[in-house]
Amino acid sequence: MTTEELHSSILRHRSMLCVGLDTEWAKLPDCIKGGSPADAVLRFNKEIIDATASYCIAYKPNLAFYEALGPEGLRVLEETVDHIRTSHPGKFLIADAKRGDIGNTARLYARTFFETYDFDAVTLSPYMGVETALPFLEYPGRYAIVVALSSNPGSADFEQPEKVMKKMMEVSTPENMMFVVGATKSSSLKEIRTWCPDNFFLVPGVGAQGGNAEEVIANGANSRGGLIINSSRAIIYASSGSDFAQAAAAVAAKTARV
Amino acid sequence: MTTEELHSSILRHRSMLCVGLDTEWAKLPDCIKGGSPADAVLRFNKEIIDATASYCIAYKPNLAFYEALGPEGLRVLEETVDHIRTSHPGKFLIADAKRGDIGNTARLYARTFFETYDFDAVTLSPYMGVETALPFLEYPGRYAIVVALSSNPGSADFEQPEKVMKKMMEVSTPENMMFVVGATKSSSLKEIRTWCPDNFFLVPGVGAQGGNAEEVIANGANSRGGLIINSSRAIIYASSGSDFAQAAAAVAAKTARV
Repeated sequence: MTTEELHSSILRHRSMLCVGLDTEWAKLPDCIKGGSPADAVLRFNKEIIDATASYCIAYKPNLAFYEALGPEGLRVLEETVDHIRTSHPGKFLIADAKRGDIGNTARLYARTFFETYDFDAVTLSPYMGVETALPFLEYPGRYAIVVALSSNPGSADFEQPEKVMKKMMEVSTPENMMFVVGATKSSSLKEIRTWCPDNFFLVPGVGAQGGNAEEVIANGANSRGGLIINSSRAIIYASSGSDFAQAAAAVAAKTARV
Repeated sequence: MTTEELHSSILRHRSMLCVGLDTEWAKLPDCIKGGSPADAVLRFNKEIIDATASYCIAYKPNLAFYEALGPEGLRVLEETVDHIRTSHPGKFLIADAKRGDIGNTARLYARTFFETYDFDAVTLSPYMGVETALPFLEYPGRYAIVVALSSNPGSADFEQPEKVMKKMMEVSTPENMMFVVGATKSSSLKEIRTWCPDNFFLVPGVGAQGGNAEEVIANGANSRGGLIINSSRAIIYASSGSDFAQAAAAVAAKTARV
């Protein structure tokens, strides 16, 4: 997907929302828990996706939640991606994997997420250097999303957002590189946008983590939209009753509207 | 496994060697390629493990290589771990995953690698802060192995080994924390050992990447041993003929001897 297509999707949906599929069996509504944990997670994902698709531009499964189910979890991931591709074409699909390796290992991760699973983008942890992103940049229409500034309290421990963004921009374009920029400090988004006017930002930390989507848009949008605003728990666990899908849709409809 | 048990294993085997199971179907000897790629990788791993077990203290499957096989790959990973646990008890098992996430996501990764798969340790990419390691420190006898200094050319882009090690040491002990310290700069190992006298280091970059194990031991060992020296390709792909297992054993027997 090109950034122009992503911008069209934002305009068409009047939304910058990405629904984070951090689906954990223990947190599912009782009404959907029958059968194996893997089956329950898949059924839940499909209902959440069908209910929210009108109100979002992207979905972001968090790999940890699928790997925790063992080999069956990767089947759930595969079928979740297939369901989105088949029933809701045009969505931007992000593998939230925070992979951060180099050389042959990075090349294999790129092949896995882009070829085996057909994701549009993968999140990466850049500690080991610019090399962590290179193999992901070789797939036209697909993206590395490098963590620049995260939304956790300890983000200041070792993160160097300006250095990471500037060095990554030297080897990439806005058509193959995006950045994770946390929303819990939305005032700093304005400054970060000056370093990097053209790339899309994936913004976590809205919803359960306390970030405010309106402030994020005011401080971080660019002429192409430029933002994918993620909310996970506040949407998918909006209700623990049998109305979980409608409740998710209602929250999604109000989040990151433009 | 305690560090004392790991030290005993080093003394018993007269070796600090970790065999990296970066097993890629395309690189396997033709004689073992029959059946599905996943089956071939598993058969290859078992033969390599049985041939090298006398000469090493640890095995390190690289997750990228198993995830690249899709859901079947995780079954191969599971069965590889089971084979080592059953046939060669007492080996230190490292999941080379370079995970780097926080909060609930990090907790799930810890549970997956330590409970679902029974690894002794997991490699982590620390960009997002000290929080990336915390959930991994809560399992007695198991370890976070945090990347401090890697062995790739771009390691200087964003890495801050002294800062990462010192901050991680504030929240951990040598009984639950190790560090990745690349061997391609073995002279700097001596300095790094002064910052961190007691923790074990996992040292990649020996063998195919050019690091010299003798120099690593001279500069980095401590009174407990303190080193796990990894070699992957130079051992597992020592021969592409039907003698691949004996060839792997011969290289393993000469690598990281003490």
